[in-house]
Amino acid sequence: MTELELIAAIERLTGGRGERVARRLGDDAAVIRAKGVAVGSIDAIADGVHFELSTHSPADVGWKALATALSDLAAMGAEAGEAFLALALPRGFGTGAAIELVRGVEELAASSGVTLAGGDVVRAGALVVTVSVTGWADDEADLVGRDGARPGDAIGVTGTLGAAAAGLLLLQGADASLTARDREELLRRQRRPVPRLEAGRALAAAGATAMIDLSDGLATDARHLADRSAASLRIELERLPLAAGVTEVAEATGRDPLALAAAGGDDYELLFTAPDDRRAAIEAGAGLAVAWLGSVEAGSGVVLTGSDGAPAEQLRGYEHA
Amino acid sequence: MTELELIAAIERLTGGRGERVARRLGDDAAVIRAKGVAVGSIDAIADGVHFELSTHSPADVGWKALATALSDLAAMGAEAGEAFLALALPRGFGTGAAIELVRGVEELAASSGVTLAGGDVVRAGALVVTVSVTGWADDEADLVGRDGARPGDAIGVTGTLGAAAAGLLLLQGADASLTARDREELLRRQRRPVPRLEAGRALAAAGATAMIDLSDGLATDARHLADRSAASLRIELERLPLAAGVTEVAEATGRDPLALAAAGGDDYELLFTAPDDRRAAIEAGAGLAVAWLGSVEAGSGVVLTGSDGAPAEQLRGYEHA
Repeated sequence: MTELELIAAIERLTGGRGERVARRLGDDAAVIRAKGVAVGSIDAIADGVHFELSTHSPADVGWKALATALSDLAAMGAEAGEAFLALALPRGFGTGAAIELVRGVEELAASSGVTLAGGDVVRAGALVVTVSVTGWADDEADLVGRDGARPGDAIGVTGTLGAAAAGLLLLQGADASLTARDREELLRRQRRPVPRLEAGRALAAAGATAMIDLSDGLATDARHLADRSAASLRIELERLPLAAGVTEVAEATGRDPLALAAAGGDDYELLFTAPDDRRAAIEAGAGLAVAWLGSVEAGSGVVLTGSDGAPAEQLRGYEHA
Repeated sequence: MTELELIAAIERLTGGRGERVARRLGDDAAVIRAKGVAVGSIDAIADGVHFELSTHSPADVGWKALATALSDLAAMGAEAGEAFLALALPRGFGTGAAIELVRGVEELAASSGVTLAGGDVVRAGALVVTVSVTGWADDEADLVGRDGARPGDAIGVTGTLGAAAAGLLLLQGADASLTARDREELLRRQRRPVPRLEAGRALAAAGATAMIDLSDGLATDARHLADRSAASLRIELERLPLAAGVTEVAEATGRDPLALAAAGGDDYELLFTAPDDRRAAIEAGAGLAVAWLGSVEAGSGVVLTGSDGAPAEQLRGYEHA
């Protein structure tokens, strides 16, 4: 597949969305009518590292590449705008597979209101899919960084945790007793994670002081937030909202379900902090379930505690390498 | 090298430039104060395809990755703004090499007024370097696409051609009799191409009707411009401005110098069209030498001609595959 063929495929498969995109494919660069502030991020995923073609279809890979990038916009509270896709394709990954991959990107783009505005395709020694995204906000003050957590803030998380890690264990052959529905949902969370774009904007509007998306796992990502905020995050492990089926998969594979939820990556939920008096507004506005995990304190790092408040010593080593 | 180490290295090595960048590294995404229109593009280069680590240093690779992306902004007449870097690193490409690569990106970024605003680093089976860039313009009307060439327009090109291809032949061992200065310059054009950002903006301001950067070679890129403009580009081969030393390298390797200039990629000069009465303004404003190659006609495709105006039959097959 040549670059021209891919661009032609993208043009066929995809559409411009909204009034913002003045030019997208076919020129040297896309032209986007701007507003206030632009929010930008880039993410790459590679075969054998972030996915396996034996368990993820090309469309899953495309979806996931865009999801990881959009999740960063969600964590800023930005409105998603445009995406740019670079495909590095090894021999043996043919035109049909590449088009399926683009179709997966476009599926998530369509459901997220995102325009695939440009792309590049090159031959390479391995499959690497890189997506850059641009989001928008009217004003810098509408966005939330990682650096705003303050002692006394409550710590919250959207949705449920451990699903993507449990889904991966299922793909790797874990033999857990699950309802068909829970199994499907865990697999979907691994293969087709949905970035929390609407929740991110709602949390920002409702007063979140700091926010990060959970890509490496709660324990690791909480540390990033603690580091940037120069504060300590005290999180009670038993408050982690386990996705349905996580307990069964963990037990079937000899794991602690809370460890799976705290250390498992790829959930793409949002971890955030907010003043205590914003909790009701956040619960009302987030548009999905929010669990309160603990509180921000003076200090540094992350303290995972048992329900007695004592540090959960047996749960050290939760962090993503 | 972990992502955090790379981000730390980027933070150490690089600086934010200008007032536009509100947040760059350390958050989920960078935040850029926008104006008018944003111009976006993404480009990937891969080891063994676009460069060889045996002939290009890691810093050369980083420079080149950014150059190819910025060249697309140049071809739109946009002001260069921010860059995002995704590194897919194979085993054996260590931290030191990755930092050198980032240093090469930053060298060109610094000399182009570009801020390296974000990045990602992942393990992969092959070295793939992807750069997305954002440029800016006050108004869509300030930009130039590929689609504006009209019959009667003159066809121009900036600078000189064939240098990068000749430089590659030298790297591959071509034994040409050259002055040390010409040799160095041909190698530099291959390893450290400079995107024509200022010329692109000047050409747009001076009335260029269509523009494209020469990445795949003049014959191929002229066809893209012809296709998007639904017109024919008639180019007299002997008017191609050969870089110093190209003739010697071509002859030493049994090639036609004009073929090297017409088919050789990676020159990153700008091919453009403009109404005949804008030629003087363009020559005065471009800030570097401009050569006039021929004219736009009704029809389609590219016609390469001899000095007698007859199609140069013996030069078929110039196009990049």
